[in-house]
Parts: sequence; C-alpha cells; structure tokens
Amino acid sequence: MNKYSFLDDYSEGCHASILTAMTNVNLVQQTAYGEDEYTSKAKVAILRHLESADSSIWFVASGTLANIIVIASCLRSHEAVVAANTGHIVVRETGAIEATGHKIITMSTSDGKLSPTIIQAALDSNSHYPHMAKPRLVYISNATELGTVYTRAELSALSEFCKSKELLLFLDGARLGVALSADKNDLTLSDIARMTDIFWIGGTKAGALLGEAIVINDRGLADDISFHIKQRGALLAKGRLLGIQFLELFKAELFFEASRHANAMAAKLSSAMDDGGFRLAAVTESNQVFPIMPNPLIEHLKKHFDFYVWEKLNTEESIIRLVTSWATEEGEVDRFIHEIGNYIHPLD
Amino acid sequence: MNKYSFLDDYSEGCHASILTAMTNVNLVQQTAYGEDEYTSKAKVAILRHLESADSSIWFVASGTLANIIVIASCLRSHEAVVAANTGHIVVRETGAIEATGHKIITMSTSDGKLSPTIIQAALDSNSHYPHMAKPRLVYISNATELGTVYTRAELSALSEFCKSKELLLFLDGARLGVALSADKNDLTLSDIARMTDIFWIGGTKAGALLGEAIVINDRGLADDISFHIKQRGALLAKGRLLGIQFLELFKAELFFEASRHANAMAAKLSSAMDDGGFRLAAVTESNQVFPIMPNPLIEHLKKHFDFYVWEKLNTEESIIRLVTSWATEEGEVDRFIHEIGNYIHPLD
Amino acid sequence: MNKYSFLDDYSEGCHASILTAMTNVNLVQQTAYGEDEYTSKAKVAILRHLESADSSIWFVASGTLANIIVIASCLRSHEAVVAANTGHIVVRETGAIEATGHKIITMSTSDGKLSPTIIQAALDSNSHYPHMAKPRLVYISNATELGTVYTRAELSALSEFCKSKELLLFLDGARLGVALSADKNDLTLSDIARMTDIFWIGGTKAGALLGEAIVINDRGLADDISFHIKQRGALLAKGRLLGIQFLELFKAELFFEASRHANAMAAKLSSAMDDGGFRLAAVTESNQVFPIMPNPLIEHLKKHFDFYVWEKLNTEESIIRLVTSWATEEGEVDRFIHEIGNYIHPLD
Amino acid sequence: MNKYSFLDDYSEGCHASILTAMTNVNLVQQTAYGEDEYTSKAKVAILRHLESADSSIWFVASGTLANIIVIASCLRSHEAVVAANTGHIVVRETGAIEATGHKIITMSTSDGKLSPTIIQAALDSNSHYPHMAKPRLVYISNATELGTVYTRAELSALSEFCKSKELLLFLDGARLGVALSADKNDLTLSDIARMTDIFWIGGTKAGALLGEAIVINDRGLADDISFHIKQRGALLAKGRLLGIQFLELFKAELFFEASRHANAMAAKLSSAMDDGGFRLAAVTESNQVFPIMPNPLIEHLKKHFDFYVWEKLNTEESIIRLVTSWATEEGEVDRFIHEIGNYIHPLD
Repeated sequence: MNKYSFLDDYSEGCHASILTAMTNVNLVQQTAYGEDEYTSKAKVAILRHLESADSSIWFVASGTLANIIVIASCLRSHEAVVAANTGHIVVRETGAIEATGHKIITMSTSDGKLSPTIIQAALDSNSHYPHMAKPRLVYISNATELGTVYTRAELSALSEFCKSKELLLFLDGARLGVALSADKNDLTLSDIARMTDIFWIGGTKAGALLGEAIVINDRGLADDISFHIKQRGALLAKGRLLGIQFLELFKAELFFEASRHANAMAAKLSSAMDDGGFRLAAVTESNQVFPIMPNPLIEHLKKHFDFYVWEKLNTEESIIRLVTSWATEEGEVDRFIHEIGNYIHPLD
Repeated sequence: MNKYSFLDDYSEGCHASILTAMTNVNLVQQTAYGEDEYTSKAKVAILRHLESADSSIWFVASGTLANIIVIASCLRSHEAVVAANTGHIVVRETGAIEATGHKIITMSTSDGKLSPTIIQAALDSNSHYPHMAKPRLVYISNATELGTVYTRAELSALSEFCKSKELLLFLDGARLGVALSADKNDLTLSDIARMTDIFWIGGTKAGALLGEAIVINDRGLADDISFHIKQRGALLAKGRLLGIQFLELFKAELFFEASRHANAMAAKLSSAMDDGGFRLAAVTESNQVFPIMPNPLIEHLKKHFDFYVWEKLNTEESIIRLVTSWATEEGEVDRFIHEIGNYIHPLD
Repeated sequence: MNKYSFLDDYSEGCHASILTAMTNVNLVQQTAYGEDEYTSKAKVAILRHLESADSSIWFVASGTLANIIVIASCLRSHEAVVAANTGHIVVRETGAIEATGHKIITMSTSDGKLSPTIIQAALDSNSHYPHMAKPRLVYISNATELGTVYTRAELSALSEFCKSKELLLFLDGARLGVALSADKNDLTLSDIARMTDIFWIGGTKAGALLGEAIVINDRGLADDISFHIKQRGALLAKGRLLGIQFLELFKAELFFEASRHANAMAAKLSSAMDDGGFRLAAVTESNQVFPIMPNPLIEHLKKHFDFYVWEKLNTEESIIRLVTSWATEEGEVDRFIHEIGNYIHPLD
Repeated sequence: MNKYSFLDDYSEGCHASILTAMTNVNLVQQTAYGEDEYTSKAKVAILRHLESADSSIWFVASGTLANIIVIASCLRSHEAVVAANTGHIVVRETGAIEATGHKIITMSTSDGKLSPTIIQAALDSNSHYPHMAKPRLVYISNATELGTVYTRAELSALSEFCKSKELLLFLDGARLGVALSADKNDLTLSDIARMTDIFWIGGTKAGALLGEAIVINDRGLADDISFHIKQRGALLAKGRLLGIQFLELFKAELFFEASRHANAMAAKLSSAMDDGGFRLAAVTESNQVFPIMPNPLIEHLKKHFDFYVWEKLNTEESIIRLVTSWATEEGEVDRFIHEIGNYIHPLD
C-alpha cells in the first residue's frame, strides 16, 4: 500500500479542468510555437491582473528554463547575479546559471530573503573592478525556498534599492501562488509587475502539468527574449499545451484558489503541531511546515506517510518538512494529525 | 472559416488515448522527476524494441533540449560537430549548440544525408590541429529535414566509418516515426541502437503533446546524463507527463501506426501530384511532399489551405511543402486533391 | 644548416628598438595591469592617427584573445557573427568564438572579402526568427587571410550597409600593417576608425613580441570592455610589456615602415615569379605570394627554404605560399629568386 | 617624486638575464607556436626538477589563462570546482571560470588553505544529485592569496583524499616560487608533480615579463590540452618569448634565488614589525606581510611608499599589506623600517 506523500507539491497531475479543456480542443488545428489562440487568451487573462502596459508574457516548460532564459538574456558575460545562498539557482539547478557563463554571488540570510543591506554587502565585496564580475541582477524567490514570503514593504525597498544601484530585480515565482495567498501577504501581481524588472509565475506547483509564465516588465528586456526561449529549448512546438493550462488557471480564480487550499492545509498541520506541543523550526508562512519532532515519532509517521527529514538535530530530535499543495487531501492531513495524536496519547 | 493546415506535423494536440491515460491516473501520487511508474514502464516498452543491453532511455521536453543535452554531455569544449548544412541544429535552433560552446562544421549535401565521403571531407578540412576544433560527433537526422530517409546500408556504412575514426554517431529522431514507417525503410529501432552511440525518438511529431526519448547506447555516455538533463532545464518535476505519453505510444504499436498514417497521407498527395502532371522537387520518402506548381494554382489553394511556399523558382512556378501527420484527415487530403483537379479542369 | 623560412611573419623576435626600450626602463616601477606610463603614451601615439574623439585603445596579448574579447563583449547570447569562410575566427581559432557561445554564419567569397551583397545573402538565409540566431556583427580581416586588401570604397560601402542594417562592423587587423602599406591601399587608420565599430591593430606580425591594440570607436561598446579583457585572461599584470612595444611602433613610423618592407619583399618575389613565367594563384596585394610551380622545382626549393605548399593542383603543379615580414632579409629573397633561375636555366 | 611600491610583485620588468637572452637570439628564425628550440630546452630544464615520467609542460601567457585552460579542459559541463573563498579564481578573475560554464563551490577557511575536512563538507552539501553540480576538481593555491604555504603533510593528505574521492587536485602556482623558498616549506617540485594532477609554475611573479608553465601529471589530461590553449587565445605565435624566459629561470637556480630574495625581504620587514611592537594579522610565511598599524602611521608611510590598506579594523588601526619580490631593493626595505622608527621615536 502506498504511503500518502507530503514530499512536495508536484506529486499529482493537474487540475481536472485543465484535462477537460485539453480534451475539448484536442484536434483543433492551431498555429505552433505559442502563436495559438489559447496562448493569446492566457496572456490576456494574466495581463488583466498586472495593470502594466509595458509587461509581456512568455510561457516556458520548466522553472530552470525560466531562470536560465531570464538570466542569460539579461546579462552580458561579465555580469553577475546576487542571490541568497538558499536560492533555487544556487542549490537545486546543477550549476545551470554558471553553465550559461554567469557567476552567482551568494549571500547568507536568516530566512531566505534578500534585503538592501545584504545586497549592499554583496556590492561592497565585489567592487574591485575589473578584477571582479559586476553585480547586475538580483535574484529573489517568493515564496522563498524556506517557505517565507516577502511583504509589500520589503519588496518595495528592494525595488527602490535595485533601481538606485542599476541592478535588475528578478523574482522567481515557482511558489508565487502560495506566496500571494499567504495570510501574511499584502502584495498583488500588479505590485510585483511594478516593483520587479522580470518575474515568473509558477504553474507547475499551482496545479499545471508543467509550465511557467515569465513576465517582463520592461520593453527593452523583452525585445529579443523569444530568441533565448528558442535557443534554450523552451519553445514548445505545441505551445498550446502551456496556453491552455494558464488560461484555465487565470481565466477565473483557479490559480489563487488552488494556492489558498495548499496554504490552508499547511496551516492546519502547523496548528496541530502547536497543539501537540511541537516547536517549528521556521514560522509557517505558506505551504511548507517544518516541525521539530522526536525521532521515534518520525519513524512511526514514516510508516504511513512520505516526507523529508530536513535536518537531524541530535539523537533525539529532527526537523521534518511537510509540503502541501492544491491537491492535498484534507482527509490525509487529518489522518496525519490523528497519527500524531495516537503516538502522544496511545491509550486514547 | 479556418483553412486546413498542411504546415507542419504539430498543429493538433495528441492521441486521444494519451489524454485518457492522463485523466485516468491524474490524482495518483507519483515520485517526481521521472521516478514515477509510468516512466519506468515506458522505458521498458521502448527497450523491448531495442534488444540492446547497454541502452538506457531518458525523456526530455523538446527536441532542441535533446540536441543540447546530448551534444553538451558528449563533447569537451574543443570538440566539434559535423552536420549537414540543412540539419535542424544548423538552421532551426537559434545557435543552441554554439551557445553550449561547440562549433558545428557544416557540409553541403544533395539530400540532407551525410555519408562517409562527406564526413571524410569534413575531417580533411579540419585537420590543422590544434588550430582547428576537433571533429568528434556526427549529427544526422532520420528522416532528414528534407523528408529523406536512411537505408540500413547507409546507416551501417556511417556507423562503421564513425567507429573507425573515433567519431560518435548521433541521430536526431524528431521524425524517426515516419522514417521507420516509410516504404523505403529497412531499419529497425534495434538496428539504430546498434549502429549509433546516441539517438532520440521524437514524440511530438508522432502525436505526443511534447516529449522526446533519448536513447544512449553506451554506458559511459549515460553515466552522468541526468546532471545535464537537469542543468539544461529538461527535468520536469512532473516527469509522469512524459512517461504516460511514451507508454501509450510504445505499449502497443501506436507510435508506428500513427507514423504510417502520416506517410500514407503524404503518399496519396504525392501520387495525386504525379497524376496531375506536377513535378516534385524531391522524392517523397516520408511525410513531406514538395510539388512544383504554377503560382496561380498556389494562390488558389492558399484560399482553402495553409502550407509553406518553400522556394520561388521563377515568375511562373514555385515549390510548396505539404506536411502530413498522425492527425491528418484523409477527407482534407481528398479536398486538396479535388481543388487541384478543379483548377486544372475547371469545367468538370 | 637551417633553411631560411618564408613560412610566416612571426618567425623572429621583435624590432631591436623594442628590446632597447624594454631594457632601458626595465627596473622602473610602474602601476600594473596597463595603468603604466608607457601604455598611456602608446595610446596617445595611436590615437593621434585616429582623429576620432570617441575611440579608445585596449592592449591584449594575442589575436585570438582580441577576437574573443571583442565578439563576446559586443554580443548577447542569441546574436551571431557573419564572416567569410576563410576568416581566421572560422578556420584557425579552434572554435574560440563558438566557445564563447556564438554562432558564426560563414559565407563563400572569391577573395576573402565580404561585400554588402554577401552579407545581405547571410541576412536573407538567417531571417526565420526566432528559430535562427540573429546576425549582429560582421567580421572582416584586412589584409584578409588570402593577402587581399580592402579599398576605401569597399570599406565605406560595408560601413554604410552595416549601419543601415544595425550590424556592428568589426575588423581583424592582424595584418593591418601590410594592408595599410599596400600599393593598392587608399585607407588610413582614421578612415577605419570612422568606418568600423571596432577594429584591432596587429602588433605581432608588425614586429612586436606579442600584442594587439583593440580600438573601440563607440563609447557604449567600450564601457565595460575592461571586464572582458580580464575575464578572458588578457589583462597582463605587466601591461607595460604591451605599452612599451606599441609606443615603439607608433611613436614614429616604425609600424608602417616595417610593413612596407614586408610588402616590398613580397612584391620583389612576385615580380620574379612573373619574370620566370609562373602564374600566381592570387594577385599579390600585401605580404603573401601564391605562385603556381612545377612540383620538381618546389622539391628543389624546399632544400633551401621553408614555405607552405598551399594546394596540390595536380601531379605536375602546386600552389605554394611565401610570406614576408618586417624581418625578411632581402639577401634571402634574392637567393630564393636565384635558385629559381638556376632551376630554369641550369647551364647559366 | 615617485614613491617606492610594495603594492605587488609585478611592478618591474624582468630579470636582466632574460632581456639579454632575448636580445642574443632575437633574429634567429624559429618555428612558431611553441615549437621553437628555447621552449623545448625550457621544458627539459623544468622536467629535470619533476622526476615524473608522465608530466608534460605547457606555457601560457597569464595566470587567468592557465586557470581557465586547466579547468575548462578537465571538466565536463556538469562538473564543479571546490575552492577556498579567498581563491584567486573566486575573487580576482571576473568570473572567468563561470564564463567557461563551471560552478565554483566556495568554502570558508581560516588561512586560505583547503583540507580534507573542508572538502568533505563541500561534498556533503553538494550531494543531492542530479540537482546539484558534481564536485570534480579541487583548486588550491600555493602560496595562498594570504601568503600561507602548504606543508608536505598537508598536500599529501589532500592528494590522498582527492584520489579516494575521484577528485582532481589542481594547484595554482602563481606564487609557487615564494612557497617553495619559504622557511616553512618542505615540498619540492617533484613532490608537487606526484601529489597533484595539474599545477602551474608562476613566471610573472618570479621575474618573467609574463608567462606561466602548466605542468600536467597525467597523460590523459594532457592529450588534448593544446586545443584548449589555442581556443582560449593562449598560444602565442612567438612562443619563443615564453620559452626563453622559462629557460633562463630554470636552466640554473634563478627561479629559486629570485623567490628567496623576495622572502628574505618580507622576513626583514616582518621582523621589524615585531621589533616595533606591531602585531601581524597573519603569520609571514612567504613574501606578504600584514602588519596592524595605527592609522596616523599608515598616513605617514603613504607619503613615501605605495602599499594596500588591506582592512580598516577601527578608527585607530588598520591592516596593511606589504608585498616584496625578486626586484625589491633592500635599501627601500631599510628606508621603510627607518620611517617607522622615526615615527615611533621622533626624537631619535
């Protein structure tokens, strides 16, 4: 019997409505390479949220491709990226950015988020020109790889700082759905379009089969982006596959609803940890929960569920990571909580 | 009213059975990044055709990604590719191979196919070491970009020649389905596995939504390929999307049936051209037909159909290109032929 | 006994005056990395010839480095170079440009020179955007790799054409000395500064130990060039080595005198070929001579001299290449001519 | 009046004997591209020190070129470098290694030196394959960028560790002369040839005009290195320039004598600091001295000497860096010490 998985937010397929839409238009002939009508409509649906006349939308097949394309298209060979040392491009993309020729200047943070102070420190320690690569683009993730989210004040401060230093601000939105749906969030897509030069909206984690929407908020940066999309292998012949999905996510509220569900399931798990007397290694701001648990309990839970042991603290306790998603079944969350209860109060 | 398109072989979605399979297992949780059970089964299904103990299968999202990954993983920075100047990597991938740092030595051919003689000429004119990049990998396409196909004798000769010169032989199989289903074909997947170092099987043109299967026939070349797949952005979180599709294509004969249909439709168009007295600019070997037609007829057909005018020959005649596919409707082929008849014999 | 060499124009060390200058200031402390006073003076000396307020000078260690730095600093990853298929970057730099990520679109020419017509053909066959890399920089050599030189009218036409097409014009001047000193030449350094975006002046072939001077005629292109020079390993700690040499070459007329000597020696050889009744495979415009000779004569000359057999025409005749330089001894030229005479008229 | 400089070890030209040798053979014709007789003899002279049948020598024009060529030739695109975060490739080469496509995993150290423990930590935090680049080459510097030197025991431990982990060990020897001439040193060139896969011997800092000697201790790694040297622009047409210099440095003991002088001058400065009661920020192991001084004294010394203020500690004190070299005049060292004495005891 399979164990229910809280490993990640991409263990299932996609929203049922996406499959229905794909089936409905399956044999309709469309122009290839993203020139189909579904892609056009999906762009309109997203642009409606942006209120930004200069923004344009480009769909690609994966998050790593989005990061490669954005960074390689924005930078000249001597220009570098500034990123948190927990950033996805730093620790989970096999040196993809370096493979395009660019150095990443990595900075320590307490919570996965960059601030003007941290970026200034990166600039200060990389100023011995021309013997050092020139910092030119700041990479942030929202939600971060640790599940934390940026507030409007934080992003606004970053935006102003970057403008003042002639740095491009690029936001990796693999987890943008859960960020914008977080209790703590006070940002809108329109804010992000105004405050960043480029960002992308993650479809995969929000219930698409695959696909991310790059949003370029500066016409100059958009001019030749299509060449880079093609050159890096991200221009799907059947671009309709990406268009149909983003149209379903954004024609109404599906993108946000799906993300709210993920967050709600995480909040429920998080509350139960509190109730059970377990500390959290990080505050639960989106769809990731990091409880600290006794190792025997972890062993017990592992019999019924899949999840990552994030860090072994000592011989008695470890941090685990629980990830929820658009597809998380509330019954399984309840069962998880129930198993903890059973463990704590075995006689109940 | 939309015109029926003979522009390409990726204007529709996918085989209905693929959508059904995706729908059936949509909410089943699976391990991410290609470690799902559908991917495993799809690999078994393809390997069954290969009879090659050393071969391994890797799914990626697009043909350009397949080419980038194969070439970048096989070559060191001073090594070059030999290709026909009509090769997809030469003329339709925005310098993707050069963007990974490798030179392509391009050779003229009469029919898009390389031969030992042509490759030897490339070696001869690139032998001034170390002032010239070292030819190390031969790139061929089957079917070629001109629709021609390799015979077993031709591929075998290439294979032996490459081995004798310590050149890797790499076959781009974007159109492998129609090649292996061509009347002229006498190759099997098993032959190709034996005769090449690496090849890939095109899913997109054979009726998948997206996806290509890289087949590596040498354990050494496969060792670290997963790093390259990830680094180039081709490792889909929901790898199941590729697995399900290739399982449908190869669990029975769908891949071959779909390709045979494409060829049959091309053959029908081709015969009709003959019957109508039109010359062909190239012999019809797979799913591409290149008739030479009077410009007024082309104008007439353009009112009802979409297709490329391949080359304007003079003020009176042009070459057009008609592409058929797994999805081509025979009724539309008949209508196309009928419109030609109407034009030739308007009184009928 | 050593044979006298007409193999190339870099078989000797350097002008005696360069060694004297180096010796004179050897232990004077100077700021490193090209911030020394000799480099400053050398730049002034060259700029005096340019009459171009926007031009700036940058010294690097080799011609391949000059080409790498210029092209990598000017282009974004999707942009391509247009070059003659005889261009040094195409046939003698081991794929150095591709190693920086850029495609070279190679064009056939009759004489190693590009023209608007040829470039337009390159644009026409590379216009299927975004599936093709975007031509952005035109690479020419003067003198070309075949020894031919551009006239003012030719370069002016190229310049206007490139401007009209938003193409950068880059001139590889490895052989610029002999080009500007050729009988046929009607260009000045000032013309070249006005007509190109970037060019470089070859020191090595003009009698320096090493070193080339990149001239950037557009402030925008110069802005960050120092980063690229450092990143590609071309920023010598003891930049004085380059400064001293170019100061010697340009403080008076040494650069031009040395080149005129090279051309004069080639002209003398070329005339002697005419007198001897030998055809030339290419007209002698600078310091390369391509006579067609009977193979037995070539065998005979090989006993006394080193030179390349450029191409075997048939069993009786071959083309040889004779290269002269700033260091060519006229006595050896005379001896070469004498040996030919001996062969033709053995009884004399 | 010029101030005497302790800024670096490349403010002067070269050993007088090098200029003499260059002058003596200046007009002797030699084969180009490092095939000259001086280069051959220089290789023999160095190999004599190595006692290593598998080693081969390759001369290049700069240290950054040496690092680029070694790393790019050894690694495939998914492989990464492990380095101290003070390493030259990390902080002073403008992202040159990343520009060849490779990630550098940077580690904190106390003294600029790597150890098996530190490398193991790098391996542990980069093991999530294939989502992380694969550590494959360990980069160390001897002497380090902080002036510290490796002992035989330390290098031997690194060597064994790297072998056991299938990591290549690469030593940047820009400062190898002063390392091997340090009081603390117990390594020989022969040890280094045995314990590393590749290293290079810095000529520039040891009194050459330019030039570094790459030593490859594994025939497999050397096979195609000449392509990489050419591709990166490091193959000088007049390779004799490098050959003559290394022949002078190694035909007798000049390389070691020059380095011993540099160290002796640093030791003298270092002792004087002790005598004057100044602490050192780092122990003086080679030709770099890092005294901590009152800011007013630093201001005073700046009137007479050039040197770097390495780090401002507080409003009262700073660390300065003094670098000595083969060319350092002992009289200037004495004057520097004298000025300090004047400052401390102004009445003397």
